Order: sequence, then C-alpha cells, then structure tokens
Amino acid sequence: MTYQQIDHVGIAVTDLDSGIARYQELLGVSPSVRKRMEKDGIEAAMLDLGSTHVELIAPIGPESAISGFLEKRGEGMHHVAYRVDDIRAALAQLRGQGARLLDEEPRVGVMGHLVAFIHPKSAGGVLTELVEAHP
Amino acid sequence: MTYQQIDHVGIAVTDLDSGIARYQELLGVSPSVRKRMEKDGIEAAMLDLGSTHVELIAPIGPESAISGFLEKRGEGMHHVAYRVDDIRAALAQLRGQGARLLDEEPRVGVMGHLVAFIHPKSAGGVLTELVEAHP
Repeated sequence: MTYQQIDHVGIAVTDLDSGIARYQELLGVSPSVRKRMEKDGIEAAMLDLGSTHVELIAPIGPESAISGFLEKRGEGMHHVAYRVDDIRAALAQLRGQGARLLDEEPRVGVMGHLVAFIHPKSAGGVLTELVEAHP
Repeated sequence: MTYQQIDHVGIAVTDLDSGIARYQELLGVSPSVRKRMEKDGIEAAMLDLGSTHVELIAPIGPESAISGFLEKRGEGMHHVAYRVDDIRAALAQLRGQGARLLDEEPRVGVMGHLVAFIHPKSAGGVLTELVEAHP
C-alpha cells in the first residue's frame, strides 16, 4: 500500500508560544521539534503522539503563507498529512487521476522529510499533504 | 501516557457516496465500516490507514448535527480524534484544567468505542474527540 497512515494534522495558531502552551496542557507532551521556515514566513512545532504528530503552525510576519487562512478562518485545522512509501509514485498517480497538485515535485518539509501538497479541491475540501519519511 | 496517537480525522462531505468515491481514489482503500447514526442525523464511513482512520461524515437529513458546519464552512476537516488509554481519566483531567467539554460522560461512537468531544475553544479552534478503543 502506498498510503501508510495519517502522519500528522496541521493546526494554524496565531501565536506559537501560546499554541504550544495550550496543546502541551491538552496532550501532555512537549514539542520534539521547533523550526522557522523563513521562506514560507512560518514557525512550526511538532508534538509527537506515538507514530503520529500534531504540527502547530504560526505566522512570523504579515507575508506568511498562513496569514490568509488565519484571517479568513481563525485558528483551527489547516491540513492533514499522510505518510506514503514513495512520494514520486503517489504524485504520478494523482496526476494521472487529474488531481490538482500544489507541488509538482516533492520538497523538503519542516522535519526534513520529502513533502508535497494537494489542492483541497481534489481532496474533499481538505488541504492534503503527502510525506515520505527520510530516516 | 494517556494520549496514544491520532486515531482519526473527521471530514464532512455533503454526499457520502461521492465522498467515498473521491477518498477511495485518493487513498486507494475502501471503507471498512459504514454506519448510520439516526440520532445525530449522520452517516459515516471509516477508511483505515494502518492504525489510523479517515472518517467521512455526511448528513442524512436537514436536522443533521453537521448541517450547520457544511452550510457555514463547506466540505472539509471537521474534527481530530486522539486515542487515549482511559477516557474517564482524560475527561477528569480536562475538567480540572477548566476545559469546555461537549460530553461530560463518554458515549458510544460510530465504531463502538467510547468517545467524548471537547469544545474547539479549549483546543485551539479544533473540534477534538477522545477515543478509548473497545476490543
């Protein structure tokens, strides 16, 4: 099977510190990784639950990739990510099905894995990410 | 640890058959369970990915628990569910933290497990479900 499991859910928050505090209290775990992605204008933190993760994402400036989402929707679920064996094969298959891809080629994500996003129009209104784990 | 992993993401769709068709194509798996919950006015289907699941939820009438969501937001992510060892202990802890609970006591969910929902205001804007698996 190409799709192994849900890898993580991405949750948009306005402020990363207070988002982490709230989720530490809720889930009882601290972030394993915290990283700024200057190019995307975001800072993200990963909280691990077994082999799944919660990714909290906050803007680090007005030009952030998630500012529009937060203005329109407020804090909340931003995307769902699925772990796949072979991200290039998965993208080729989706392309063959006529899916709208936001990344034609995989790129390196917050955790150093290969990732690619699929447009919500091709996934029932859900911004969808594929993740191929790199050890 | 009380929280084991992400159990599933719930995705609201306007029509269950077309939602299943789209997600079968996307994820390459068929539903393992499909069930009507007359009391909540919903029909749900579970697609399994490893130990995680995607739950598609559609209304079965105008009085459905998710009609309001679909009218306001359209199709998309509806909730995130976490698997816990002991749902009553988790609810007691959340109550002690002042979290707003939508279910004061666990109830039986789509899959026959014990479930309880937490208000989005207490979880960073995310409707959050706890699941204690029953074998």
